[in-house]
Amino acid sequence: MKLATLKDGTRDGQLAVVSRDLKNAHIADGIALTLQRALDDWHFIAPQLEQLYERLNEGRTHRHFDFDPTRCMAPLPRAFQWADGSAYVNHVELVRQARNAEMPASFWHEPLMYQGGSDDFLGPTDDILLASEEWGIDFEGEVAVITDDVPMGTNAAQAASHIRLLMLVNDVSLRNLIPAELAKGFGFFQSKPASSFSPVAVTPDELGEAWQDGKVHLPLRVTWNGALVGQPNAGVDMVFSFPQLIAHLAMTRNARAGSIIGSGTVSNKDARKGYTCIAEKRCLEMIADGAAKTPFMQFGDTIRIEMLDAKGKSIFGAIDQKVAQGGAPKARH
Amino acid sequence: MKLATLKDGTRDGQLAVVSRDLKNAHIADGIALTLQRALDDWHFIAPQLEQLYERLNEGRTHRHFDFDPTRCMAPLPRAFQWADGSAYVNHVELVRQARNAEMPASFWHEPLMYQGGSDDFLGPTDDILLASEEWGIDFEGEVAVITDDVPMGTNAAQAASHIRLLMLVNDVSLRNLIPAELAKGFGFFQSKPASSFSPVAVTPDELGEAWQDGKVHLPLRVTWNGALVGQPNAGVDMVFSFPQLIAHLAMTRNARAGSIIGSGTVSNKDARKGYTCIAEKRCLEMIADGAAKTPFMQFGDTIRIEMLDAKGKSIFGAIDQKVAQGGAPKARH
Repeated sequence: MKLATLKDGTRDGQLAVVSRDLKNAHIADGIALTLQRALDDWHFIAPQLEQLYERLNEGRTHRHFDFDPTRCMAPLPRAFQWADGSAYVNHVELVRQARNAEMPASFWHEPLMYQGGSDDFLGPTDDILLASEEWGIDFEGEVAVITDDVPMGTNAAQAASHIRLLMLVNDVSLRNLIPAELAKGFGFFQSKPASSFSPVAVTPDELGEAWQDGKVHLPLRVTWNGALVGQPNAGVDMVFSFPQLIAHLAMTRNARAGSIIGSGTVSNKDARKGYTCIAEKRCLEMIADGAAKTPFMQFGDTIRIEMLDAKGKSIFGAIDQKVAQGGAPKARH
Repeated sequence: MKLATLKDGTRDGQLAVVSRDLKNAHIADGIALTLQRALDDWHFIAPQLEQLYERLNEGRTHRHFDFDPTRCMAPLPRAFQWADGSAYVNHVELVRQARNAEMPASFWHEPLMYQGGSDDFLGPTDDILLASEEWGIDFEGEVAVITDDVPMGTNAAQAASHIRLLMLVNDVSLRNLIPAELAKGFGFFQSKPASSFSPVAVTPDELGEAWQDGKVHLPLRVTWNGALVGQPNAGVDMVFSFPQLIAHLAMTRNARAGSIIGSGTVSNKDARKGYTCIAEKRCLEMIADGAAKTPFMQFGDTIRIEMLDAKGKSIFGAIDQKVAQGGAPKARH
């Protein structure tokens, strides 16, 4: 099933069911007001949503309407947890190599993960408002899962069954703020502004055979200012599966319903697959030519992140955003 | 006014108003079901809660009941943001000194802050369940504020007016997991299990003259296994005020209503004031004797964190917890 959250003037938006072809939507009224509410009581709510989804796909609903991604908030407009892994270790290795730093061997068997801000996500077509281009504005194309309640101590084998939904993410990063911030030792903070999510979140069964071993085996297509710059396969070179990332998260604490866990920037060793963040392109340039040439994003730049199924149909709808100068309060609702 | 969240079987609990002397409570029914709901619409909701608070203090309510901290969840049982500063730079300097590492001078004028997990907070008397004593279980006594909506780019002068409530925190830390985790460069994650909060959150006016310059000028009393081990003044040696911490948080993003910002471990340069986390005691021992003697917490240990006003009355009620072996799902509600 596919779910979206529509802008309705509230902080958490209005939950809607979206048809498989992303053409029609139907308010989930009488079932659950918000996606968080559905996740809080998934076993009771999900079957009702599934039923509506079936009727919508079969054209048996009367009050459906055209699905419009520009009316979407993030599926969870605010969440109680956003934990982002770095499962494509190839990406990490490239970054290190570019600055002549050795990567600890432990990075191949112990996931990297940071806690992100989750109180103010952007919808798929919301502008990315930032005060300064000097911050080194970059996109990061990722896949993410949403879990139900994951008890502390859950292992990877158990974690798989806690994955309820999947989404795409643009984990916007401010590259020029990262070195000083990481040097302080407490991880990312100002260098990670609001993240953006795909129009719909989908249940794993929507991925069919592409959902294997806790990974999504499909290319993630990233288009920057109209040019396709990357299409790495998200199932290739993902060193830690989503269940492994969840187990890492839950080692010393519970993860509660509605927790979002990200894959980290999708990256394949095969450089012909392109890049899903500018930083990686710059690293390759630095390794090849001793200097990075590709600049970071400028105000007015656009970024599109999408995933197509084997038949070329969009699964999650597209993240399709513009970077703009801002910094004043966003009037999003 | 003083607000608490009572266990009622739901994830977000039931909002209650608590009398100034912490003796009586009254359900905020007809006003707001949950504290998050009140924060989402503070200008409309707060005056109604204030009115109920006044009537409760004057004994003019009919349906009040005895306030029982053991029935409390954290004021926000789950929150959309928990960002913890490290404003008592003295503490950071001691930790560095103990391991012969120099502290960058920038730490005195640029706040340290990490993003914490906020999906699963503990109530003030909930057991701290952890799987292993080997992790180096430590308490951390802190003060925290809750904000309303803080627009991106808000400066420190503007930030003060966004502080709606204050609480005490036990930011439980797993010291033996920290070195390896920080060495990976992405900040704390597994080393920071669920944090615990005081029975009530209070509006700044409840602190009277003790609330000055965005700091709480009162001792934070920490009692470990029945012995008072620290009573540093939270207004002394706090290098960054709460408004400064909020401005740091909001530089590149909005902070939305219900964001919790912590002070970091309260610590005074005057070592006679004792300690609010064991790590600091161990650092002092290491500097003095070359070796740390005080062990971290053991299963069965108790920790009490409280703040008294000038007349010796508890302001927030006490965080009063036991550490116990766990790791299976918590049946808290």
